[in-house]
Amino acid sequence: MIAGIEAGGTKFVCAVALDPQTILEEIRFPTTTPEETIAKALNFFMEMQEVHGPITSLGVGSFGPIDPNPGSPTYGMITSTPKPHWENIDIIGVLKESMDIPMGFDTDVNGAALGEYLWGAGQGLDVVLYLTIGTGVGGGVVVHGKPVHGLTHPEMGHIAIPRGDDRDSFAGVCPYHGDCVEGLVSGPAIAARAGRPGQDIPAEDPGWDTVADYIAQALCTYICVLSPNRIIVGGGVLGQEHLLERVRSLVLKKLNGYIRHPFLTPEGISQYIVAPGLGTKSGVIGAFALGLRAARES
Amino acid sequence: MIAGIEAGGTKFVCAVALDPQTILEEIRFPTTTPEETIAKALNFFMEMQEVHGPITSLGVGSFGPIDPNPGSPTYGMITSTPKPHWENIDIIGVLKESMDIPMGFDTDVNGAALGEYLWGAGQGLDVVLYLTIGTGVGGGVVVHGKPVHGLTHPEMGHIAIPRGDDRDSFAGVCPYHGDCVEGLVSGPAIAARAGRPGQDIPAEDPGWDTVADYIAQALCTYICVLSPNRIIVGGGVLGQEHLLERVRSLVLKKLNGYIRHPFLTPEGISQYIVAPGLGTKSGVIGAFALGLRAARES
Ligand SMILES: Nc1ncnc2c1ncn2[C@@H]1O[C@H](COP(=O)(O)OP(=O)(O)O)[C@@H](O)[C@H]1O
Ligand SMILES: Nc1ncnc2c1ncn2[C@@H]1O[C@H](COP(=O)(O)OP(=O)(O)O)[C@@H](O)[C@H]1O
Ligand SMILES: [Zn+2]
Ligand SMILES: [Zn+2]
Repeated sequence: MIAGIEAGGTKFVCAVALDPQTILEEIRFPTTTPEETIAKALNFFMEMQEVHGPITSLGVGSFGPIDPNPGSPTYGMITSTPKPHWENIDIIGVLKESMDIPMGFDTDVNGAALGEYLWGAGQGLDVVLYLTIGTGVGGGVVVHGKPVHGLTHPEMGHIAIPRGDDRDSFAGVCPYHGDCVEGLVSGPAIAARAGRPGQDIPAEDPGWDTVADYIAQALCTYICVLSPNRIIVGGGVLGQEHLLERVRSLVLKKLNGYIRHPFLTPEGISQYIVAPGLGTKSGVIGAFALGLRAARES
Repeated sequence: MIAGIEAGGTKFVCAVALDPQTILEEIRFPTTTPEETIAKALNFFMEMQEVHGPITSLGVGSFGPIDPNPGSPTYGMITSTPKPHWENIDIIGVLKESMDIPMGFDTDVNGAALGEYLWGAGQGLDVVLYLTIGTGVGGGVVVHGKPVHGLTHPEMGHIAIPRGDDRDSFAGVCPYHGDCVEGLVSGPAIAARAGRPGQDIPAEDPGWDTVADYIAQALCTYICVLSPNRIIVGGGVLGQEHLLERVRSLVLKKLNGYIRHPFLTPEGISQYIVAPGLGTKSGVIGAFALGLRAARES
């Protein structure tokens, strides 16, 4: 049996499976202190082992910033997160104390990108970008079949973008950068600007035009820098079902015909900027994939 | 003997070598019409074959946008370039008519990134970014040992960036986007803003602060999106030797400590944002590498 943790800043999702695409059992609980939260995950896995037999690998896709580079002294840790209590937490170290099995570790979004690459909307593609717009904004990238780390790992939500001519005065909520993309369009940013959570704002509210414009601006940047073969967008904010279509047409408008490809046309764009093929399961299924890779490499 | 072409929008550099790091003979000439320019390259190679023996592979690193995806019907072509006469030019097709040898084809900057990855400042690194700031602004990326194409190829110069609080009024020179990075800091952009070419503007001119700020803004975006292990910056504008140091400190200021790594510190940054290891030869040496790869894969 294989196991996965989608370690989010708001909630943890833990699951076990025999085949990565078919979850056997799953549990979700809020992210509290590291001690309590990691203990809950371990308890779940111990129970599962009693019922279903031994777990042979574990993958963890975590909120960040993290250190995903094996060989680094801080490998397996959550590093400079602004989330209280979670700075410099050695999540893989703690898990290894209780479970002596191969473990994979990466960002939640790199895990989701890997899941989508293997079994979702990114199958067989050279450059797969998975973006989540939820409590934070984060992007994971699989290039040539492997998640991208480089110096640390992508932190796509923290790019700066032009605010447009109608430059609204909202200062943004990122504690590091103010009005980076995460500071402007994450769920908490939308709530701070509107004075009510995104799920309570009707589709007709003109504020969504501003949000769509910023998201489109970010996607244009990702397209110019990475040239993804497909962009997969998930996360709670996309619960606004009108949003994706608005973003698609704004992306075309902003690129202004410079990059030519059948996907970058009014007919093709809905195949280019898409919802996750694995629905809301990309993260936890991607975590399975991280564990399986670790097992294969060990 | 191996051959390479660095096909720039301003000039072509053609070279031959036995060992890719040691150029045997090289020729440079201005980029005029496709017919004339490609014929000059072919003449040079024919002469070289008479003197040094047969050429066994050719790599072409070209200005773009291009189609570098073998299997695509427009593979080997320069596509939507604003450069007069060069739109939809089948450069590899024309070369193949005269030379029936394995040919590699990629952007000039992907070629340079590959050269730097193999023999220059990017050796052994997972994510290598090569950026040129010259007649245009372009970036090439090698990830997991291979140049990145994805949908088409990166077009890093064409990202939009915030103009800052002192938002200067310069409209930018990009025919597609106005004030994208290329529209703001390419050599022609600098010349248009200042009324004289960059090489004639003294280091004390306050305009360089604005240029350094925009370049730093672009690098921060590349860092957040790609997480390169190292950023290699070349191109004519870096002839301003004070510029790189200004850019380095502005990058640290803008990232504001969010991404933690020894390279992203005042002590480490000069090892992170660096000049090309191959000097001005990254492009043509990278072209050799493109040809060698094509020969190995054929
Ligand atoms: N229908 C909706 N419209 C707009 N925002 C929503 C909607 N549903 C959830 N959100 C916002 O999405 C965020 C949660 O995102 P989610 O992806 O579910 O969680 P997380 O990022 O923590 O994994 C919250 O800030 C919430 O306000
Ligand atoms: N010392 C310098 N300072 C500033 N700009 C320069 C300097 N030298 C050359 N340039 C500018 O760089 C551009 C040429 O860049 P280069 O990289 O040499 O060519 P290309 O991009 O065509 O290969 C020109 O626009 C020129 O004005
Ligand atoms: Zn930020
Ligand atoms: Zn542009």
